[in-house]
Amino acid sequence: MFPEAMTIRQIAEQIGAAVDGDETLSVRGIAALPEAGEGDLTFAAEEKHLLALARCGASAAIVARDAAVPSGWTRPLLRVASVPLAIGRLLAFLAGPEDLPPAGMAPSAVADPSAQIAPDAAIGANVTIGPRAVVGTGSALCAGVRLGADVHVGKACVLQEGVVVRHQCHLGDRVRVGPNSVIGADGFGYVYCDGAQQKIPHAGNVVIEDDVELGACVCVDRAKWGSTRIAADAKIGPGSLLAAQVGIAGSTKVGPFATFGGKAGVRDNVEIIGGAVIGACTCVAQSVTTDRPQMGFPSRDAKQFLKQQRALAELPELLQRVKRLERRASPSGDSPAKTSTEP
Amino acid sequence: MFPEAMTIRQIAEQIGAAVDGDETLSVRGIAALPEAGEGDLTFAAEEKHLLALARCGASAAIVARDAAVPSGWTRPLLRVASVPLAIGRLLAFLAGPEDLPPAGMAPSAVADPSAQIAPDAAIGANVTIGPRAVVGTGSALCAGVRLGADVHVGKACVLQEGVVVRHQCHLGDRVRVGPNSVIGADGFGYVYCDGAQQKIPHAGNVVIEDDVELGACVCVDRAKWGSTRIAADAKIGPGSLLAAQVGIAGSTKVGPFATFGGKAGVRDNVEIIGGAVIGACTCVAQSVTTDRPQMGFPSRDAKQFLKQQRALAELPELLQRVKRLERRASPSGDSPAKTSTEP
Amino acid sequence: MFPEAMTIRQIAEQIGAAVDGDETLSVRGIAALPEAGEGDLTFAAEEKHLLALARCGASAAIVARDAAVPSGWTRPLLRVASVPLAIGRLLAFLAGPEDLPPAGMAPSAVADPSAQIAPDAAIGANVTIGPRAVVGTGSALCAGVRLGADVHVGKACVLQEGVVVRHQCHLGDRVRVGPNSVIGADGFGYVYCDGAQQKIPHAGNVVIEDDVELGACVCVDRAKWGSTRIAADAKIGPGSLLAAQVGIAGSTKVGPFATFGGKAGVRDNVEIIGGAVIGACTCVAQSVTTDRPQMGFPSRDAKQFLKQQRALAELPELLQRVKRLERRASPSGDSPAKTSTEP
Repeated sequence: MFPEAMTIRQIAEQIGAAVDGDETLSVRGIAALPEAGEGDLTFAAEEKHLLALARCGASAAIVARDAAVPSGWTRPLLRVASVPLAIGRLLAFLAGPEDLPPAGMAPSAVADPSAQIAPDAAIGANVTIGPRAVVGTGSALCAGVRLGADVHVGKACVLQEGVVVRHQCHLGDRVRVGPNSVIGADGFGYVYCDGAQQKIPHAGNVVIEDDVELGACVCVDRAKWGSTRIAADAKIGPGSLLAAQVGIAGSTKVGPFATFGGKAGVRDNVEIIGGAVIGACTCVAQSVTTDRPQMGFPSRDAKQFLKQQRALAELPELLQRVKRLERRASPSGDSPAKTSTEP
Repeated sequence: MFPEAMTIRQIAEQIGAAVDGDETLSVRGIAALPEAGEGDLTFAAEEKHLLALARCGASAAIVARDAAVPSGWTRPLLRVASVPLAIGRLLAFLAGPEDLPPAGMAPSAVADPSAQIAPDAAIGANVTIGPRAVVGTGSALCAGVRLGADVHVGKACVLQEGVVVRHQCHLGDRVRVGPNSVIGADGFGYVYCDGAQQKIPHAGNVVIEDDVELGACVCVDRAKWGSTRIAADAKIGPGSLLAAQVGIAGSTKVGPFATFGGKAGVRDNVEIIGGAVIGACTCVAQSVTTDRPQMGFPSRDAKQFLKQQRALAELPELLQRVKRLERRASPSGDSPAKTSTEP
Repeated sequence: MFPEAMTIRQIAEQIGAAVDGDETLSVRGIAALPEAGEGDLTFAAEEKHLLALARCGASAAIVARDAAVPSGWTRPLLRVASVPLAIGRLLAFLAGPEDLPPAGMAPSAVADPSAQIAPDAAIGANVTIGPRAVVGTGSALCAGVRLGADVHVGKACVLQEGVVVRHQCHLGDRVRVGPNSVIGADGFGYVYCDGAQQKIPHAGNVVIEDDVELGACVCVDRAKWGSTRIAADAKIGPGSLLAAQVGIAGSTKVGPFATFGGKAGVRDNVEIIGGAVIGACTCVAQSVTTDRPQMGFPSRDAKQFLKQQRALAELPELLQRVKRLERRASPSGDSPAKTSTEP
């Protein structure tokens, strides 16, 4: 998996590790504990994983600074302050620089003369930028990105290929948006009047604050008035995280540090508090005011949801059991079940 | 929220309202009843909202022509024939003209010489238009729209950024399609034969009739033969409405005035009658022949679905209760529950 | 439906059929059995459909080579070895050649000089191709496709409009990808550290092996290390099939011949065995190790899921029935139901 084999010493330098054992040994790639074999570097992020380490075939392992050496383990250990951060650093080294357009405007990009684009912003091929749009310093718009009129993109943002940001929407600093996502399409608003549905214009926008990350094919609809808002993280690092194919309807507010699994959907005009955790494929039909994970359709406490789904597996059989109880309770032969199951 | 504060008189002119109270008072934005405060214009669309009006902090309100003044309310009232339509007009004023490309072909747009494009159609940057495609008068194709061969786009349509309409698909007049939606991708058709799956070519198309509106990232697949059809509204105003991320599989027919919430999906080869209401995140697995809202996976009557979900929350506990009843009914100690729960 | 009426003889030549009856008769289109009327060509793929044939109004029918003539049927029959394959051939004839760009580079396409593009590859308008990317012989990239650095596209692939393939992802031969799909966006990986979420770089990629077909708006996320993998078919014909709006999270492996209905989602780091069948709108939360169809959220055996949903419809009423049983079992008036329903 590494472009070429790396020695333990080379890896230790990348991640700032202290090494127990042979620094000249080479490894060819990373693998998680259960699958790691000869030639792999593995890792034990928590103490409970140390036992499994001894049984696995990995050639070396990253462990916490003060981890006990698992009995039977004789291969090199790389000791670090935080195992997940060390993995992150190693992956960053392996991933290399991001695949972004070079600074400046690609010849095929088209920007309205009134747009304000930082000289060091990287504007890729076929990008279009509308009147009075702003692109901050260090930001990258990959090929085929479309910014409408009066859009604001802050500093150090990355908008990947095919992203559409419609007019007047506002992105803060260090916002990342995955390919083909759509920010600021009209929400769903109609008035039934004179025998027809009249479209309600959407005078609002979308505001995505600092450090938010959106996956691929995410849709965040604009508000009829005011803003659909995805809140900033007050601290360093990404704020709210929306995985691929998430949809947020108009006028909804999302607090800082909220996370949404893939394909999650949120209805219009609700509020998701900071730190909320919305599971994948979950359909949020009302405000979420707790940081306990939510799941299901409509969404509920994830633990409750999963318990209910397990109970559901027993329901077909439960129907039979209750019928038997009813028969026993009414030996005369009248069937309360039958008479009461009318729709 | 308004670009600058507006007086009650200015608003009344925009929405055709009669004013009770001080016309020179200024407001800064719109807010719905519960959140409206000092400086906000609010509205009471129904009589039952009038009471809440008296308790809210809004500086002015739009109400129906004949609404009673709520007791305790001393601020200006704007009286109109239809509150929702008045809000719509005000939002239209605030939203200003739509963010569309100017009439004519952008220099970077590419159209096949055989395409027929109305001279006043607005064709944005990087748009591509295939052989024999037709674009009607007053229609706008935003940046990056792709029309395949023989596509028909009627009059006054708006296809937003990145929309793909594949060959031979037909859009009527005043059709609106949100960014990155895909009309006419191949449906899912394979024949298992000689130990392999053979792709069935899709010789059909998609027909979207007049006044239909599709949200962002909507997919409507083409039929193997004949058409996947989203029907027109027979009257004025939008026809069927598909919110963001809706998917309609091949050969399905949708009647006029049907509405689909975000992320709804409809299987192939079914029929959704006119006026049907399909809830968000709902998975339609068979024809819908009623105008009562549908919800769930597979879809069912929405009220029934929500009732079932509430009952589901009681199911884990119900399993315990039935076990107790069974124990009581069989005091000898044999457990009917146990013997009958085998898979 | 046919561009112009076709005689039975013309159709027989296209599909290699032997004709019983009048070869000079004309038909205007194809229709499935229940809807077929005067002027339509219909088909009976299975023996059980032959009876329905006699009752339908179709003008002619395609049947299996050895099918018995349904009693009462006097119209032409086209006899073939495989009815589905014959329909496929007829549709291929009707669909005509695919709507693809011509061989060579469109003037508005932009490829990095280091990219290796087969001279006969068809590169459409506004396509962008990154450094060191490879496009194999006979492949077509429709308008607006984006290939990142080091992407490999094999032979005879079709990437439809707006497809994004991010850096280092690998597509085998004869892979088909529907419009606006995204291959290789970052998966969802963060480490909570020092009071903030740190993004984990994604050093892995996506590998899509030979003969796989993906629908429109599909997202397949890249792995943090190693590959998210959609496996090849070992034989001829399409391999795994992903309908529109499917999402596959990072590091997941999909075996050959697996099929995914529209809107299905699969979590990260699981394995879907070859031949697996994932229903539409289904949310796969753990590895699938069976070829029995899966459905639901979280996914389970489809038959069980549908049975559970039918039972769920009876649950609200079952709650009442159990309450009655409990009352009968405790005539003294104490209500075990009440005391036991505390949350």
